[in-house]
Amino acid sequence: MEAFKWGIIGPGSIANDFADDLKYVSRPQVITSVLSHREESAKAFAEKHTVPEYYTDINAFVSKRNFDAVYIATPHTLHYEQALTCLNAGIPVLCEKPLVINADQVRDLIHAAEINKCFLLEGMWIRFLPSINTVLELIEKDKIGKVISVKASMSYKAPRDEDNRYFNPELGGGSLLDLGIYPVFLSHLLLGKPAKITAAGKLSPDGVDETSAILFSYESGAHALLESSIITQSELSAEIAGDKGVIKIMSPWNEKPSAIILKEYARNEEEELPCEWVGRGFQYQVEEVIRCVEANEIYSNLYCHHFSLDIMETLDEVRRQLHVHYEKFE
Amino acid sequence: MEAFKWGIIGPGSIANDFADDLKYVSRPQVITSVLSHREESAKAFAEKHTVPEYYTDINAFVSKRNFDAVYIATPHTLHYEQALTCLNAGIPVLCEKPLVINADQVRDLIHAAEINKCFLLEGMWIRFLPSINTVLELIEKDKIGKVISVKASMSYKAPRDEDNRYFNPELGGGSLLDLGIYPVFLSHLLLGKPAKITAAGKLSPDGVDETSAILFSYESGAHALLESSIITQSELSAEIAGDKGVIKIMSPWNEKPSAIILKEYARNEEEELPCEWVGRGFQYQVEEVIRCVEANEIYSNLYCHHFSLDIMETLDEVRRQLHVHYEKFE
Repeated sequence: MEAFKWGIIGPGSIANDFADDLKYVSRPQVITSVLSHREESAKAFAEKHTVPEYYTDINAFVSKRNFDAVYIATPHTLHYEQALTCLNAGIPVLCEKPLVINADQVRDLIHAAEINKCFLLEGMWIRFLPSINTVLELIEKDKIGKVISVKASMSYKAPRDEDNRYFNPELGGGSLLDLGIYPVFLSHLLLGKPAKITAAGKLSPDGVDETSAILFSYESGAHALLESSIITQSELSAEIAGDKGVIKIMSPWNEKPSAIILKEYARNEEEELPCEWVGRGFQYQVEEVIRCVEANEIYSNLYCHHFSLDIMETLDEVRRQLHVHYEKFE
Repeated sequence: MEAFKWGIIGPGSIANDFADDLKYVSRPQVITSVLSHREESAKAFAEKHTVPEYYTDINAFVSKRNFDAVYIATPHTLHYEQALTCLNAGIPVLCEKPLVINADQVRDLIHAAEINKCFLLEGMWIRFLPSINTVLELIEKDKIGKVISVKASMSYKAPRDEDNRYFNPELGGGSLLDLGIYPVFLSHLLLGKPAKITAAGKLSPDGVDETSAILFSYESGAHALLESSIITQSELSAEIAGDKGVIKIMSPWNEKPSAIILKEYARNEEEELPCEWVGRGFQYQVEEVIRCVEANEIYSNLYCHHFSLDIMETLDEVRRQLHVHYEKFE
């Protein structure tokens, strides 16, 4: 079977993890081209992953187009221009989360995907993990009844140095877009778009959100209590409670959890569902990208364009309430 | 040493637990008198706990006054009249949480305590437990730095039968006053009165809150994410995150936790602090009541009148946002 060919934009640590996981995809995968604004980074990545071509200019990278799809793994303030350039060249795009930094930018990318009939997927890789599918199956099988409460936290104490993008407003820093998007994704996946959003947070002297705390309420009466932080480090678990039972995704819930625990109230015991897979788990997302690209679909129906838009509209509203504004980009 | 004498109002299951724990108090304790509107309940309790006198009429109970203090353990819609009657008779009062059902009633009781120079304490028994003191000591010792986030949940799937006070608006039902008061207490203890309160919830057909979800924000930038429910049953843990470390009070955080876990970010290990005591733990609260009554203090400075008022004002605001109104009593 012919190998599926990737171009990589932004050869940082995430791109390295992504490249490492390609060996676990059922169909052969190769990286044929890499782009970085720093030649030494592009070259180092090319050597490490045996990539024949590297570039520092996106137009040259796109013109040569020696790949079936690109994976964009740069800081998120760069995603918009890079994704737009690729979509307008008809190149299928898998772009790291957050897709871009506000809903207007998402709308532009969706429009570009539609007019160019070109695949676009936000790289919320955990959507495709067996752990998240297990949760969805348990809910589908009515193991916990109607979902009433989603609680999830994503906090990581980031080193406070000048190079750290987390504290840099010019790189779209703060906890929300990088980390808070995970719990926001989970609540949107399980409960949809909230009827009401309330947020609180703590800003850094530079005006990025060091913490965000979010309460969503839904017409059904359900709620979500979500949190992200770059100044604290708490247990990375998520709990989904229904009227018949409760699911706990053990730490780290947004990567490979130690387990998923199901407790049905009517049975006085807990069921522990293992979460095991090889590598970090990017292969599941890659399988979905290939399936869509081969079928000439412009979105994945597991994480469609409007789902990205819903999430970004929510993040915009949270940022509005927190008074976090990325002046350079908005 | 002469025994400290208790009168009990409302000999239900909590009063039984209270009575059982009296043997763990350093000074001898006796229950000399019990009051219930149902004679059979009063009599059964009197027999079980060797109580010489039982009553069905509060005026007779108060007039005889064969005790040093009363413990009120009736449903909370009855607390106001009973506590007021006792305070106006100059009888020291320990009254189960919630003290009453709204802030106006708290103000009346504080006024009665003040004009009668009579002790009054809301029975938030966990305030006096070694577990909560351990948390306060860790924070005092700066183990976790400045408190940034408090997350706590108290959910209990109550049987939905007609006798169940949890679903009965005429008994002040709902999750908030009975269960939600615990997480609200914890956040007030650690962070004070919130600058902003936002609540969401799910109401029963009878208009009591089956769930409440609360976001508090504070001037310092700290936040609290709190939850209570009578239709779900989730992990009863609490997590307090600071900029230097995090404390997790393991389940059941609001009773006798399996442990308290301290994690200092700078040290790459967890410290597990045991929580062990005999009985349920009412003895610690009782010791404080006796100390105050003997010293002729009208409040405990560990849980003063205005702390009860702050909490009740918060609960009033949450109820206002949830549209929960106890028509019969307000």
